[in-house]
Amino acid sequence: MTPPDDCEARVRASFARQTAMATLGVTIAHVAPGEVELRMPYRADLAQQHGYLHAGVVATLADTASGYAAYTLMPPGADVVSVEFKLNLLAPALGDAFTARARVKRSGRTLSVVTADVFAHRDGTERLVATLQGTMMALVERG
Amino acid sequence: MTPPDDCEARVRASFARQTAMATLGVTIAHVAPGEVELRMPYRADLAQQHGYLHAGVVATLADTASGYAAYTLMPPGADVVSVEFKLNLLAPALGDAFTARARVKRSGRTLSVVTADVFAHRDGTERLVATLQGTMMALVERG
Amino acid sequence: MTPPDDCEARVRASFARQTAMATLGVTIAHVAPGEVELRMPYRADLAQQHGYLHAGVVATLADTASGYAAYTLMPPGADVVSVEFKLNLLAPALGDAFTARARVKRSGRTLSVVTADVFAHRDGTERLVATLQGTMMALVERG
Amino acid sequence: MTPPDDCEARVRASFARQTAMATLGVTIAHVAPGEVELRMPYRADLAQQHGYLHAGVVATLADTASGYAAYTLMPPGADVVSVEFKLNLLAPALGDAFTARARVKRSGRTLSVVTADVFAHRDGTERLVATLQGTMMALVERG
Repeated sequence: MTPPDDCEARVRASFARQTAMATLGVTIAHVAPGEVELRMPYRADLAQQHGYLHAGVVATLADTASGYAAYTLMPPGADVVSVEFKLNLLAPALGDAFTARARVKRSGRTLSVVTADVFAHRDGTERLVATLQGTMMALVERG
Repeated sequence: MTPPDDCEARVRASFARQTAMATLGVTIAHVAPGEVELRMPYRADLAQQHGYLHAGVVATLADTASGYAAYTLMPPGADVVSVEFKLNLLAPALGDAFTARARVKRSGRTLSVVTADVFAHRDGTERLVATLQGTMMALVERG
Repeated sequence: MTPPDDCEARVRASFARQTAMATLGVTIAHVAPGEVELRMPYRADLAQQHGYLHAGVVATLADTASGYAAYTLMPPGADVVSVEFKLNLLAPALGDAFTARARVKRSGRTLSVVTADVFAHRDGTERLVATLQGTMMALVERG
Repeated sequence: MTPPDDCEARVRASFARQTAMATLGVTIAHVAPGEVELRMPYRADLAQQHGYLHAGVVATLADTASGYAAYTLMPPGADVVSVEFKLNLLAPALGDAFTARARVKRSGRTLSVVTADVFAHRDGTERLVATLQGTMMALVERG
């Protein structure tokens, strides 16, 4: 019998190897099969010209959550890379902190399709600031 | 007679207000009407789990080049924000430095469509690692 | 007092002017504020090389549902056009009929962001075959 | 020695099996390794509410050109399907005829990335009306 896969442990181990996550201050808030939530504080040194969190940083948060959401459903031993993603910016990324919530729409043997919403937190409320739709690929070692 | 607009000066002034650019080490390599080229070194602290430059950082470089390419063709006094962008990752982002070259495909009064290619430089060669297609919006003050 | 806007009547009037809808056999299944559902039968004469409904026809169904979902929230007198959309194909578009369900994620004065899922119906079941994320623009006459 | 692959013959054979192409009036204008150009006349019965060629039909033209551009570089025996595409609409699709020109940006063993521009022809001029960036997948039979 196959023991239940600890997808959270796999996500945390891979995430720990992403140096960009520590540099940008991103942490893991939630992991479940097909779902990952990441969080980061606002950083005044990662802003665009109006002081909003830079769209590319928003993309980094959303892409990483999406990749790991897909990864939770991949077999142990696989690795994950982004094939492509599309991000719509919906509102200024202003707040004390940001959360990206990614969910798998379709998990395939090679390709998975994932969507993610990014929320800005301020004064106890959250506001949708961006949404992503992307494709992630499983890399499986051929033995 | 309207003097020729110094689009490069406008781009450099706005770019200098993007704190993310200094934090990530991005610099301006080229500005001309409808074209912007940005550059950044490889940063081991901005990598994903295999040591490649993180896809979100590649997106940041390409999105910023795209926004400023659109901005060169906007009227003085306008500002620019990203509406959306789509990034395809074509090859591992490995190299000593990275260049994003953005070019406007269609410049409209409100919306502009831009494409950008990102190249990795290594051992005197450059390799295409990502390509972006996106929409940028002009924000014009209503007086 | 403003009477409630009959967004369904507006959608049906505009839809009736889209000759492509009659030609492809698309009909309106549901309209509510921020939501539109369209339906079409499988058409053997609109297939790709394996007999699946052509990805472009799937795009047509999803794009039209998305445009009208955005349109339901636009002021009377506005018109709607597609700025851009991104479609992921998730499974072969095989079935007796297809439904696109579009929902507005963010409705702005000028731009709206919409997502749509396309389902194939077969043997009493439905299967997700495609998903779209796109941007729609309100065109308002300046009087 | 491997004889030169006749990629045009392969494209034409697959294209002939796409019933949507005959129904919409699309024809092949040019095939070369990594490049395909398709053409269709304006069709008043494939319009949106202003009489422009429907964005979904523009997408069909661009997606098909893109898929076959990728297909020219795939090994004989492979088949091609669309993974995803993103289309920006740049100008009203008005004209007597439309051409989609697709070009491969990166051809991989499994995935290829392609861009396509769609032009409207009118009064001897052509105007860029849409641009696509997408991902195509090679399906190879496992023997």
